[in-house]
Amino acid sequence: MAVKIVTVGEQILGKNEDIARENKKILDKNRILTINIMSSPGAGKTSLIMSTIKAVGKKVRIGVIEGDVASTVDADKIAAMGIPAVQINTAGGCHLEAAWVTKALKDLPLEKLDVLFIENVGNLICTNNYTLGEDIRLMIASMPEGDDKPIKYPAMFADSDVVIISKTDLQPYLDFNETSFLKTVKGLNSDVTILPVSCKTGKGLDAWYQWLEAQVKAKKR
Amino acid sequence: MAVKIVTVGEQILGKNEDIARENKKILDKNRILTINIMSSPGAGKTSLIMSTIKAVGKKVRIGVIEGDVASTVDADKIAAMGIPAVQINTAGGCHLEAAWVTKALKDLPLEKLDVLFIENVGNLICTNNYTLGEDIRLMIASMPEGDDKPIKYPAMFADSDVVIISKTDLQPYLDFNETSFLKTVKGLNSDVTILPVSCKTGKGLDAWYQWLEAQVKAKKR
Repeated sequence: MAVKIVTVGEQILGKNEDIARENKKILDKNRILTINIMSSPGAGKTSLIMSTIKAVGKKVRIGVIEGDVASTVDADKIAAMGIPAVQINTAGGCHLEAAWVTKALKDLPLEKLDVLFIENVGNLICTNNYTLGEDIRLMIASMPEGDDKPIKYPAMFADSDVVIISKTDLQPYLDFNETSFLKTVKGLNSDVTILPVSCKTGKGLDAWYQWLEAQVKAKKR
Repeated sequence: MAVKIVTVGEQILGKNEDIARENKKILDKNRILTINIMSSPGAGKTSLIMSTIKAVGKKVRIGVIEGDVASTVDADKIAAMGIPAVQINTAGGCHLEAAWVTKALKDLPLEKLDVLFIENVGNLICTNNYTLGEDIRLMIASMPEGDDKPIKYPAMFADSDVVIISKTDLQPYLDFNETSFLKTVKGLNSDVTILPVSCKTGKGLDAWYQWLEAQVKAKKR
């Protein structure tokens, strides 16, 4: 499947939140569960999406918007799996904005989707300040990044509905204090769902798929 | 040693590059080798600085400016080692700017320093757009982030004088294609010095210390 590319850098009119609200209306009308995926570079956003497509992509119709500073590497991988994918290149921008998502939505077959993953730019600093029209904010914290990330990037953890701890297969080789990590995250955000996974071994992914399918079902009601 | 904190958010006057040039003059006058350290969150900037202090901190007089979105976690660690450290909290900002470094320099004993490490905000997107007055731009690429980072964040690699590949002790457990990584980095930046290290096992650190000491010596000439 060919990847469509949205170019940004034009004057964005209106406020991000107003535009996000319009995006949400469109997505709600189509009953598409929309998940804004945020993380550091290389924490495993694309790997999580690809594992999910492989595991549940026949039951759940998935579409993907890929946000990146440069390249279409990720969107190409997704499109190669036969999944509708739109690339947004932010031309140096640190985060996705709702107006760019509005454009990307025009290139997706909305009536044929149950889930839309929006892979945000790899950045723990400002991505959480821009709502895009999503139902769920999912953050991936990669275990090799260390257990102090919630202390150093508290807003990201406070603003997320789900925190996925990725690369847990590396835990035996890391000094990652899981108790301290979980305590800090829960302190910032007592309602957050925390799911540890390894896309390499598959450990923990079933819990994620079950959680996702339950959310899809709820959105269809 | 108590950590001093620079608060930002005030109106920054003048252009970043002009201010950076003024910083460089001050640092040159004091013959301080200044290294701007950039990376993703959790790639090991503070670990590299701490290892370096332990290994060469008696021969080479080190000072540190720590840039973070929130917290003084890193500066506290450095100060606990008896090293002059100033924390810049960017109040949500994605990168350090030269004007904040100017302020931080006022809180450092410049006449007593050979090296100044400026630990930038953990971010691969815009940190490289703001010179701070440094002699050397050093980027840390953490192996668990994957070998595709130079493709996805090309400007960071193109603008660096040194690329340190960190967490190499994890290599046996990762699908990191080192040949492909090195090829892409050299394609973006043929002059770059690449140093693979593990702060956990110490492997590769001697080469880094030697490189650093040679640069300090050259700066004193």
